[in-house]
Amino acid sequence: MAEPRAEVTRDLARLISRSTPSDIPPEAFHQARRSVLNWLGAALGGCRDASVAHALAMAGEFSGPPQATVIGHAARMDSLTAAMVNGISGNILDFDDTHAHIVLHPSASITCALFALSEIRPMHGRTLLHALVLGIELESRLLDPRTASYRFAWSPTTSVASLGAAAACAFALGLDERQVAWALGIAATQAGGLRETGGSMSKAFNAGNAARSGLAAALLAARGFTGATTAIEGPKGFIAAFGEARDPSSMVEAWGRQWQVLMNTFKPFPCGIVTHAVIDGCLQLHAEGVDPARIRSVRLAVHPMAMRLTGREAPSNPLEAKLSIFHVAAAALLRGRVGVKEFHPGCIADPSILQLRSRVGAKVDEGFATDEAEVSVVVDDGRTLVRHVDHAVGSLVRPMADATLEAKFIDLCDGVLPRPAADALAAQVWAIDRLPDASAVIRASAGFTGPGPLQ
Amino acid sequence: MAEPRAEVTRDLARLISRSTPSDIPPEAFHQARRSVLNWLGAALGGCRDASVAHALAMAGEFSGPPQATVIGHAARMDSLTAAMVNGISGNILDFDDTHAHIVLHPSASITCALFALSEIRPMHGRTLLHALVLGIELESRLLDPRTASYRFAWSPTTSVASLGAAAACAFALGLDERQVAWALGIAATQAGGLRETGGSMSKAFNAGNAARSGLAAALLAARGFTGATTAIEGPKGFIAAFGEARDPSSMVEAWGRQWQVLMNTFKPFPCGIVTHAVIDGCLQLHAEGVDPARIRSVRLAVHPMAMRLTGREAPSNPLEAKLSIFHVAAAALLRGRVGVKEFHPGCIADPSILQLRSRVGAKVDEGFATDEAEVSVVVDDGRTLVRHVDHAVGSLVRPMADATLEAKFIDLCDGVLPRPAADALAAQVWAIDRLPDASAVIRASAGFTGPGPLQ
Repeated sequence: MAEPRAEVTRDLARLISRSTPSDIPPEAFHQARRSVLNWLGAALGGCRDASVAHALAMAGEFSGPPQATVIGHAARMDSLTAAMVNGISGNILDFDDTHAHIVLHPSASITCALFALSEIRPMHGRTLLHALVLGIELESRLLDPRTASYRFAWSPTTSVASLGAAAACAFALGLDERQVAWALGIAATQAGGLRETGGSMSKAFNAGNAARSGLAAALLAARGFTGATTAIEGPKGFIAAFGEARDPSSMVEAWGRQWQVLMNTFKPFPCGIVTHAVIDGCLQLHAEGVDPARIRSVRLAVHPMAMRLTGREAPSNPLEAKLSIFHVAAAALLRGRVGVKEFHPGCIADPSILQLRSRVGAKVDEGFATDEAEVSVVVDDGRTLVRHVDHAVGSLVRPMADATLEAKFIDLCDGVLPRPAADALAAQVWAIDRLPDASAVIRASAGFTGPGPLQ
Repeated sequence: MAEPRAEVTRDLARLISRSTPSDIPPEAFHQARRSVLNWLGAALGGCRDASVAHALAMAGEFSGPPQATVIGHAARMDSLTAAMVNGISGNILDFDDTHAHIVLHPSASITCALFALSEIRPMHGRTLLHALVLGIELESRLLDPRTASYRFAWSPTTSVASLGAAAACAFALGLDERQVAWALGIAATQAGGLRETGGSMSKAFNAGNAARSGLAAALLAARGFTGATTAIEGPKGFIAAFGEARDPSSMVEAWGRQWQVLMNTFKPFPCGIVTHAVIDGCLQLHAEGVDPARIRSVRLAVHPMAMRLTGREAPSNPLEAKLSIFHVAAAALLRGRVGVKEFHPGCIADPSILQLRSRVGAKVDEGFATDEAEVSVVVDDGRTLVRHVDHAVGSLVRPMADATLEAKFIDLCDGVLPRPAADALAAQVWAIDRLPDASAVIRASAGFTGPGPLQ
């Protein structure tokens, strides 16, 4: 084990407390804007889930003043509780952002903590984006393999998320160096989140709980509540508890040279990432006017892992459909879109989908990259139309365009916000750094329409 | 690593959900009563600490309905928040209970979670004691070295405390087997608490946070929120995250044959446990009428560890005094008691204490046990009075008598509750299993007198 450097927590606290907007280049601010839009869409899409309803029913009994918006619901709750509930909504669809090189969903807990804070401590939209950039930076550096290796049982995203949320909220609160270090200490001692939760509602709860913990840590530190100022690198601290130190001091090296938010990517489709190249190719063919009724057969060529993980020919439920290149190919070719609705039971059992799906075949190409695929469609006049996807849309090489990201957002608002409200909200996010009060965005995310437990 | 048994979490859930009062023998109920009295006293003694004031100031902004008592304060808060604040109060003095064989303060988080719950879900006093016995059982078995070994950076007490609190609250709520398993899963994914917090307010926060987490877990499970039902033993579960499995299945073996609550001990003095035999001997001499003014010299013989950890001849502040056999010997001989006040700065600098302290000498006896000491006092007529303590009072061999435990409790109430209220509260705890509504005890612990941030 490398000798831990003594001052990592304090050094990070200094870097965070002294950060100024001029440290953050425009492209980092823009990627933060995109991260907010993506997270908010995922939360609007997830807010009708049963897990959110259960959490609301429990938390409603204990919530304090109606300080903060519950995304997609008319009820308001205290900020700590809202952060927790909105964290569940944002994560439950598995549609959140992904760091291109580290197993991390960077916005999961930071964004909801910041918005919940913005409703009680007004902050400029630019400050919120800036705080998000800093929180993502801290999380990415904590999880960077150069810093440490962590035991597999920990959910990587949630194990660092209370620290990321605390860092972001501490910055937004304008805490001084000593208080930021306390906040990191209080967040570190609340850190947790087991991978074993996968398959239960607790997986998404991890994101919400970390948001709540990180926000509470910053607010406690602001009141003078002390934390361990060696919480990350100390011999009885975060790294020693969660794994093995490599070079913790690398966490503070070259800070600000290249912001990790620029490594953030967004999933265009709410299903297994290895299916994305297939979907991409099929959507291209659909967009070029291939009539699904005239398709005689479809052949897919994919990376071996795509076949192993998603080679399910006849999925029977939504979870299985998300892991089936056959279903997603049929849906993309037939409907020209693969959104949340394409995994509803009605779509999975739709006779037209089933008919087209039965004409899809797949084979492995050992030479392909994981985000590469080829789609060949034979139409009834005998022609074969081929689309080769080198890199799936949504990867770092082919990021989702702003317009595509917005379309995803609008799609996820369906059933929660009326279309004009969704359009207006998207416009507000794109311009958030011109909003003197960032909370306008989250307030506009309360539910207006559609069924829901607390409407 | 031993092969983890597949069903530990579910087996525990079944044992907890099916437990009946006839499983618990009278002596276990009585030891649970003693645990409640000890914890409540520690919380009443700690409730004026600055850490509690800071936590109250933060939490007050977000607290929901005034459901639950904040110990020693007039303000009431929602039950989740009260559990957190009372957990800090109960732990901050380091005066809580200790398992005789495992590094565990069993009541720290369970008791405050149960009392906070009792104010919203009325429960019989006997149910509260029963639930406490079960929670202590779970925590002790989780930390038992036969179950697993855990990484040193984790605070043992707090790492298992959310699970203990969840188990106790789930039982008190009458949850079924499946719901108890969910509660354990939701608690496990919130488990944490770093040793690095030692020396900061966050150390006591760990106890409060675990209480809150465990209570929330049980309440979420009651609403249908699902957790991982393999959370403890699963390959990505609690044991795998916190350390290395040995024989997790030992957790469910011989359940109910000997309850771990019977291994619980109570500290008679609010200072380092290795000083306790010295204090014991000195108090015996004081009780026998040795006049401090006539003491010419005092010689202490102690275990080597007592000298190494507490051989500080001239302590200058409370924390140092707690680690000084010289100070505690002088205080015990002069005042006939070693309570919280004997570590106030006024006592440490008291000229009579300083004079007597200067006459105390100490030497190591390699043959002594850690809880053994000999005190020899030479009085001015030339006689030498000797008291040999084989086992300090408070150890499992010489437990504090009920009356002594009550005296400790009354002492800790000083400045928070008027003496008649303290006496009445103690009587209520001794008879708690005859109370149809256990919350009467915690409601009687609200503050009436004395200065305090929220009075």
